[in-house]
Amino acid sequence: MLKKCIENVRSKVPLVHNITNYVTVNDVANVLLACGASPIMSDDLEDVEEITSICGGLNINIGTLNKNTISSMFLAGKKANKLGHKVLLDPVGVGASKLRTDTAVNLMKEIKFSTIRGNISEIKTLALGNGSTKGVDADVADAVTEASLDNAVAFVKTFAKKTGCIIAVTGAIDLVSNGDKCYVIRNGRTEMSKITGTGCQLSAIMTAFLIANPDNELEAAAAAVCAMGLAGEIGWSNMQPSDGNSTYRNRIIDAIYNMDGETLEKGAKYEVR
Amino acid sequence: MLKKCIENVRSKVPLVHNITNYVTVNDVANVLLACGASPIMSDDLEDVEEITSICGGLNINIGTLNKNTISSMFLAGKKANKLGHKVLLDPVGVGASKLRTDTAVNLMKEIKFSTIRGNISEIKTLALGNGSTKGVDADVADAVTEASLDNAVAFVKTFAKKTGCIIAVTGAIDLVSNGDKCYVIRNGRTEMSKITGTGCQLSAIMTAFLIANPDNELEAAAAAVCAMGLAGEIGWSNMQPSDGNSTYRNRIIDAIYNMDGETLEKGAKYEVR
Amino acid sequence: MLKKCIENVRSKVPLVHNITNYVTVNDVANVLLACGASPIMSDDLEDVEEITSICGGLNINIGTLNKNTISSMFLAGKKANKLGHKVLLDPVGVGASKLRTDTAVNLMKEIKFSTIRGNISEIKTLALGNGSTKGVDADVADAVTEASLDNAVAFVKTFAKKTGCIIAVTGAIDLVSNGDKCYVIRNGRTEMSKITGTGCQLSAIMTAFLIANPDNELEAAAAAVCAMGLAGEIGWSNMQPSDGNSTYRNRIIDAIYNMDGETLEKGAKYEVR
Repeated sequence: MLKKCIENVRSKVPLVHNITNYVTVNDVANVLLACGASPIMSDDLEDVEEITSICGGLNINIGTLNKNTISSMFLAGKKANKLGHKVLLDPVGVGASKLRTDTAVNLMKEIKFSTIRGNISEIKTLALGNGSTKGVDADVADAVTEASLDNAVAFVKTFAKKTGCIIAVTGAIDLVSNGDKCYVIRNGRTEMSKITGTGCQLSAIMTAFLIANPDNELEAAAAAVCAMGLAGEIGWSNMQPSDGNSTYRNRIIDAIYNMDGETLEKGAKYEVR
Repeated sequence: MLKKCIENVRSKVPLVHNITNYVTVNDVANVLLACGASPIMSDDLEDVEEITSICGGLNINIGTLNKNTISSMFLAGKKANKLGHKVLLDPVGVGASKLRTDTAVNLMKEIKFSTIRGNISEIKTLALGNGSTKGVDADVADAVTEASLDNAVAFVKTFAKKTGCIIAVTGAIDLVSNGDKCYVIRNGRTEMSKITGTGCQLSAIMTAFLIANPDNELEAAAAAVCAMGLAGEIGWSNMQPSDGNSTYRNRIIDAIYNMDGETLEKGAKYEVR
Repeated sequence: MLKKCIENVRSKVPLVHNITNYVTVNDVANVLLACGASPIMSDDLEDVEEITSICGGLNINIGTLNKNTISSMFLAGKKANKLGHKVLLDPVGVGASKLRTDTAVNLMKEIKFSTIRGNISEIKTLALGNGSTKGVDADVADAVTEASLDNAVAFVKTFAKKTGCIIAVTGAIDLVSNGDKCYVIRNGRTEMSKITGTGCQLSAIMTAFLIANPDNELEAAAAAVCAMGLAGEIGWSNMQPSDGNSTYRNRIIDAIYNMDGETLEKGAKYEVR
């Protein structure tokens, strides 16, 4: 029941520690509040261990990494692992530079992630050790389509099994797998890619969903993907003719704010393979 | 007259130097413009003394502090003190980590603040030297309610007297005191806590109000609190059924933008104890 | 044809590397997406050379510079020069502090900029080596008005010739010159100055326009200025009585999102001197 997953977030109000980029951080904080969670941002080496200790989980996003925040990611991640917290990796732009690739690969070596969420190009880079990432958007050649779906599902399952993480690949069709099962999700709209940070926002609420549903991680991760995609659909239905991507950004977060369990349950479009 | 306080901001256009967190900084800049002030952000050690010199006051917010910006806070604060500028402290998340507590406590030792503004848990931490801060939100157990109001007023007055600062505690009921008198303010809506940064925004406009009303600091600080709360009420009255916290954020800043002295004077709900 | 300039952005989807301030970075990313470009933000010394290599151009904005990001600006700028990429400088607040002035002046010495865009006070500071910049807004005494227009055009042409850059001075009247010709542009609204970052946004889309129109740089820069000003007019026409600067910010980006070549061509108000 996806319904229960979002209801648990709203009733438990999980505190989420975010080490994230400065581009989309405000929307990340607001979408966490919108789904019923509570955000805290902290990325200083001296601050992160204590902050992550009072939280339920940690969301690491490498979108605007630098040498100081990279150190903080490792330190906070290890502490969160020690405490048994959920830890999520959003490998923004991995494959676009050696620093990003090395950071993500080394984070995966030294920290046990509950979940890794990225676009298909980013996840392929992590799986294959090199990639064709062009900036922070997925390469068209990599896109998960109905034609490539079987191969993509197999790829995601294999990578999930190999890493022991839930892998969430988001795009036109979203895939969420723990290696055994794979949710194939068809919520969302292409216009969401014209807003900066819908991926970052999803990673943040996914962390909240994981914390609030500890015994049901795969479904929780899938529920977060459905919620974000559905919010994209609801938000779009509220658009006026003169509205564009900036207003759409607000409407999506607003739709998360107003989303109850019933709405999510009815609006989610997925199959399990 | 609260009316005069906001009118002075609009006519004098105070330039406010902000060393603030990267989560809510854009809203802080826009709300300063909305109330008639002019924002400048600068947090590099080499830059802050000169920048603060051309401004009328300094707003220090420790929401995403790091070792570089902490040094800048001390340097800018001392310079602002030397120049007789208003300096405000927003101790975001103090009590949640040693770094935040130490930074706030040491800032209070080395810099003379005109005003300190925080939620009740943050202010209690500063007063008692330790706290029950849970992340960046106030602890429910600490909340200022009608039942605890007498004690809370006494506490804020005592702390204001001890520090020689105006102390502003904001929450369901807001308290603003200089040790002698205490404004008890009942503007605002609980939904404001579902937006990141309404506290940061308030600290910023409070700094502008203080600069523009140098001979009337207590009333200026109270006027800023009333203005922000009233903007929350007006913004809410403009909400459509599908709107949520992201749109509400815009509507609150919009309400500050459109607020004139008459509206503030009529809409402010306060008593002085 | 300004029409062609924006159509080229939408068809070529230029990838723009931004080293920019953390105040307005989210709006910068969203406005780049709105005009059809793709943004990437990266400011770490180890990351910037590779990231700029995969992009078509680089937008350097010194709004919240620090010693780390200053080094990155030089490194990325030199790399972009080597690759023949367009590089734009937005000298935010130059003249307000020695650090800002020195950084901008040295960047101009060591990097070949295609274009420099600022308000009149900032550009005067660069031209004269010192300035009367008050914070990040233009000094009223410097404003380009109908009365001072002839002198201002001559000044901008001279500075463009001397530097070999396209110089864009934006304000009530905008001037864009390559030293030979000067576009005098009268789009926009004064209320745009009540939003933080419309200048930063313009610099970003100007970079995208330059990349997408390599053989037509002057017109491309002018087209970006017209587009932003026209978006300010269209956005304003969609304002409701209770709307203010925060909503106006969204409506301007929305207007860029919905702007096609015809709209730009018809709405642009300019003469060439």
